[in-house]
Amino acid sequence: MTQPCEMPVTQIHVSKKMTVNELVKAMGKAGAYNGGSLARAADIWEQMLRDEETTKFFGLAGAMVPAGMGGIVSDLIKTGHIDVLVSTGANLTHDIIEAIGCRHFHGTAFCDDIELRHDEINRIYDVYLPDDAFVHFEEFMQKVFGQLGEGSTISISALLEHIGKNTKSGILHTAVKKKIPVYCPAVQDSMIGLQYWLFSQVCRVTVDAFADMPALMDRCFTAKKAGAMLVGGGVPKNFILQSMLMTPNGFGYAVQLTGDRPDLGGLSGATLDEARSWGKITEDAQAVTVYGDATITLPVLAAAVMERLHHG
Amino acid sequence: MTQPCEMPVTQIHVSKKMTVNELVKAMGKAGAYNGGSLARAADIWEQMLRDEETTKFFGLAGAMVPAGMGGIVSDLIKTGHIDVLVSTGANLTHDIIEAIGCRHFHGTAFCDDIELRHDEINRIYDVYLPDDAFVHFEEFMQKVFGQLGEGSTISISALLEHIGKNTKSGILHTAVKKKIPVYCPAVQDSMIGLQYWLFSQVCRVTVDAFADMPALMDRCFTAKKAGAMLVGGGVPKNFILQSMLMTPNGFGYAVQLTGDRPDLGGLSGATLDEARSWGKITEDAQAVTVYGDATITLPVLAAAVMERLHHG
Amino acid sequence: MTQPCEMPVTQIHVSKKMTVNELVKAMGKAGAYNGGSLARAADIWEQMLRDEETTKFFGLAGAMVPAGMGGIVSDLIKTGHIDVLVSTGANLTHDIIEAIGCRHFHGTAFCDDIELRHDEINRIYDVYLPDDAFVHFEEFMQKVFGQLGEGSTISISALLEHIGKNTKSGILHTAVKKKIPVYCPAVQDSMIGLQYWLFSQVCRVTVDAFADMPALMDRCFTAKKAGAMLVGGGVPKNFILQSMLMTPNGFGYAVQLTGDRPDLGGLSGATLDEARSWGKITEDAQAVTVYGDATITLPVLAAAVMERLHHG
Amino acid sequence: MTQPCEMPVTQIHVSKKMTVNELVKAMGKAGAYNGGSLARAADIWEQMLRDEETTKFFGLAGAMVPAGMGGIVSDLIKTGHIDVLVSTGANLTHDIIEAIGCRHFHGTAFCDDIELRHDEINRIYDVYLPDDAFVHFEEFMQKVFGQLGEGSTISISALLEHIGKNTKSGILHTAVKKKIPVYCPAVQDSMIGLQYWLFSQVCRVTVDAFADMPALMDRCFTAKKAGAMLVGGGVPKNFILQSMLMTPNGFGYAVQLTGDRPDLGGLSGATLDEARSWGKITEDAQAVTVYGDATITLPVLAAAVMERLHHG
Repeated sequence: MTQPCEMPVTQIHVSKKMTVNELVKAMGKAGAYNGGSLARAADIWEQMLRDEETTKFFGLAGAMVPAGMGGIVSDLIKTGHIDVLVSTGANLTHDIIEAIGCRHFHGTAFCDDIELRHDEINRIYDVYLPDDAFVHFEEFMQKVFGQLGEGSTISISALLEHIGKNTKSGILHTAVKKKIPVYCPAVQDSMIGLQYWLFSQVCRVTVDAFADMPALMDRCFTAKKAGAMLVGGGVPKNFILQSMLMTPNGFGYAVQLTGDRPDLGGLSGATLDEARSWGKITEDAQAVTVYGDATITLPVLAAAVMERLHHG
Repeated sequence: MTQPCEMPVTQIHVSKKMTVNELVKAMGKAGAYNGGSLARAADIWEQMLRDEETTKFFGLAGAMVPAGMGGIVSDLIKTGHIDVLVSTGANLTHDIIEAIGCRHFHGTAFCDDIELRHDEINRIYDVYLPDDAFVHFEEFMQKVFGQLGEGSTISISALLEHIGKNTKSGILHTAVKKKIPVYCPAVQDSMIGLQYWLFSQVCRVTVDAFADMPALMDRCFTAKKAGAMLVGGGVPKNFILQSMLMTPNGFGYAVQLTGDRPDLGGLSGATLDEARSWGKITEDAQAVTVYGDATITLPVLAAAVMERLHHG
Repeated sequence: MTQPCEMPVTQIHVSKKMTVNELVKAMGKAGAYNGGSLARAADIWEQMLRDEETTKFFGLAGAMVPAGMGGIVSDLIKTGHIDVLVSTGANLTHDIIEAIGCRHFHGTAFCDDIELRHDEINRIYDVYLPDDAFVHFEEFMQKVFGQLGEGSTISISALLEHIGKNTKSGILHTAVKKKIPVYCPAVQDSMIGLQYWLFSQVCRVTVDAFADMPALMDRCFTAKKAGAMLVGGGVPKNFILQSMLMTPNGFGYAVQLTGDRPDLGGLSGATLDEARSWGKITEDAQAVTVYGDATITLPVLAAAVMERLHHG
Repeated sequence: MTQPCEMPVTQIHVSKKMTVNELVKAMGKAGAYNGGSLARAADIWEQMLRDEETTKFFGLAGAMVPAGMGGIVSDLIKTGHIDVLVSTGANLTHDIIEAIGCRHFHGTAFCDDIELRHDEINRIYDVYLPDDAFVHFEEFMQKVFGQLGEGSTISISALLEHIGKNTKSGILHTAVKKKIPVYCPAVQDSMIGLQYWLFSQVCRVTVDAFADMPALMDRCFTAKKAGAMLVGGGVPKNFILQSMLMTPNGFGYAVQLTGDRPDLGGLSGATLDEARSWGKITEDAQAVTVYGDATITLPVLAAAVMERLHHG
């Protein structure tokens, strides 16, 4: 923090063919509320991505893939900006659905859900997904699971890696190509999990819930520095933040994009300052929360920071 | 609405030196949640601004000027994109403060407010405003009010126009130059109001609360079409929307940027669909709400739409 | 604040025929998040209402009367717990509608607003109000306004008092009976305002926007202590809080019930701590914000505090 | 739904020594916004709990135990109102902490987290938990895990049952006594998980991530009817709702208490209508969402419904 009343608010003026980064910089000069936080998030994320000593964690919660945010995540993996990905099972389910050629569609939230049910359409706010996609998903998943060795034991990340090897695009595919681990602690809580349950009725493969912990913890213990970009809260946010808790270190960079609020006490909406009291985040960590819908804040941030890193 | 499951969600990929409008168009192809709504808002606002038969209303609520959004509003007036401005008293107070050379400053919301009080700093979330600004404000306002004719009666918009004539920049100044009316129904509820009360103790000028209504209503009755861009809710949103209620017509275009939620029943968070039941918005109006912080959504929208209209 | 880690969280157990106050006390012993805040709000409001040296302000924003909260407000006036009421025009409009025998109805927010429009029903989230009510409202208002003396000048509170004298129940009626002033700075921004505009086309009565300020300011200057119960934000919250700004004093008690959030910078969601930096609230004021829907928090608080004051 | 404009809004009046249920019934007669939803939630939950053919699921997300809501959950298990509990790992961690005699404490959210860190206090919004509790927790967990047979394989619910057998109070203890299963799909994502990782370094016990699925799915297939009370979203909400997806049936009763919002697209804030499009909830299910903080809505609901069922 600078001295109080040192840096004035600069009124924003939109300029000709303004790039996203130019606008984010103008928001930073205005510097107020979530617009100001977004600009600080760009600065912190840029610095984190430029810092070669930093292990970069990325948390993905909320139905982001059905909303078209999966492309950004894949690109970030491709360009080396994610070292460890932690996701909800739902995002990976929808990533697979797109990877096998099915699509999500523009819809509306102001509709008759019983009618949609009759039309065999599943709704995610204003995104529509036809039942048909799940037919293809089941076929694909059962085939892929069928390749696992009966009687073997496997970790969740190895299960996801196995799926990724069978896809030709998307997050899981790109993670395999770039050899980054994808963790999904609550994989049972998703269509992947339901498909696995179906599969487990005919073939016994044990998914060891804790098999991913040693490699993750080793990574945390050996990381010189750690940084976290958190899209949404839920399991990914907490799983990432708690991972440094057993080490003498903590996250030195942290950005969270969330629509939740702190006063309800839930971890999803908790401030990153709260995380300092636990030691999840270091005392001098650069950390900022941007409140808002990640379908706006993530693309704006990604465009601004990629402009700085790659296109500048 | 297109047919269900006709238009697929397109995953977003950030491209080289992407302009704000290019990113907003990519958000539109993703089409989901508030990112999708933001893209629709850009389309609707563009169409509204291009429509020469449409009278363009702009509602300004929330502490937007202290956050650097005043520059965008002034520019929109300057370029002819606002025909009628309705504002809270607070935004106009802060507009005057900047116009007379005082500044708002970057601060932090995580501070000791009693300490700030001792340091003579007033806080607006993470914006700081030194007490000193109000000393200059009082001096300026008393001088300006002192030019009013003792015993006269004046409308609120005329009072604001009089202030605007005494400033050299900002929203009120630009409104005077472009001859657009600024309405502020709750002017008493602001520092302008408190200054006026001070002034009224030494000089009697009557501010007629309803004197602005005839001109506004005439405007509404004669408007071929009407469009509304609503930043925040409060008095400006309702005052604009109710203005068409007495006419046989309604708003044909409406965009609202709000952080409020509909389920609390307040008008600030009410959906624009709700406004259709009242007839404030026409049955076939193009209308969209973007939930989020206007310090993000307004600059993004303004940059995208100005790129389309002026810089394309 | 007690010492850190002095007062343990007590798990809540529901007991037999628990009264509302008993439950609120249990929430206080749990003491966390908004449940804990609600219990503190009950303590502060109780103390404020018991304090005979305190002038009690009440702010009423949000569509509370259509939601059945008007009964609580009338009762609070009746029992002497409100000395000064500041309301939005909308709440007073709906208060008049109920007072003249029209009703609001249970509806649903998941409906077709265009269909409602055709059925001549106006929607307020999940409350329905038939157009018919506005026919009676217009008839009543024009009659009442017609009693005003042509060519006279009147304050907003006097205009509202005049209406209250013509009703037999509700907030305005009770305020007249208990001789408490009702302020409504943005009265133009409501159906009352639109009716007044209609009336003003045939008869000239000047409503002086600032005529209420001297009496209010006198009240503020002479108040030994001041307390504020704020339901919602908007004009009522700010108008109440700013009223003490010109005096050497500030509010010593403050409770706000709001669904807004602080990070958007708007005054409606601003914390009461922020108000300390301005001096609106005294440094040692007892103040608490309860985030949530006032259709839950207000009845719970009122039942708990009335149990303590009257039924204990 | 009744006919439009059939059931009028009844203004609320607080009465003498009003019980919680009496107040909730008054909120139901007002019937608007979340107050109205809360009253409908009480009706639906009452009916669900009275329905002996219904299997009762309970989802527990958000930091509810640190906030004193664990007592209500334990009591609901004790009185037979929960058949299947799905929880986050965090709630179970804090349940164990209280069960082994450590306490959470009243704190404040407006504090210096670095100072708290130095004072060895962990913050959960305005709840404080001394580091010391985790020392006892570690000791307890390692002892309890040490009783597991080296080389064995165990399900997550069996692991939790084993812990519950070693405690003398709290949710896990009561669940063991009442023989109800506790599911926690993301158990790795909690202090329980971190302790298990520590343990796994010295002793090999496999926790089979999917071992709980067959029993749960059997339960779902044999349930005549299913009902869900969902406190918060996250994994518990989705895991419960998806569990009926593979069966020809769906949930016939559903109540969710959430502070999230639907327009962000995340499942936590998704409406229960959206769940109808997926078939998670039956077309004619009685379902309602109450938006707000569960530290208010859960105690009010529990007190009202227990008054109806047990104390009436």
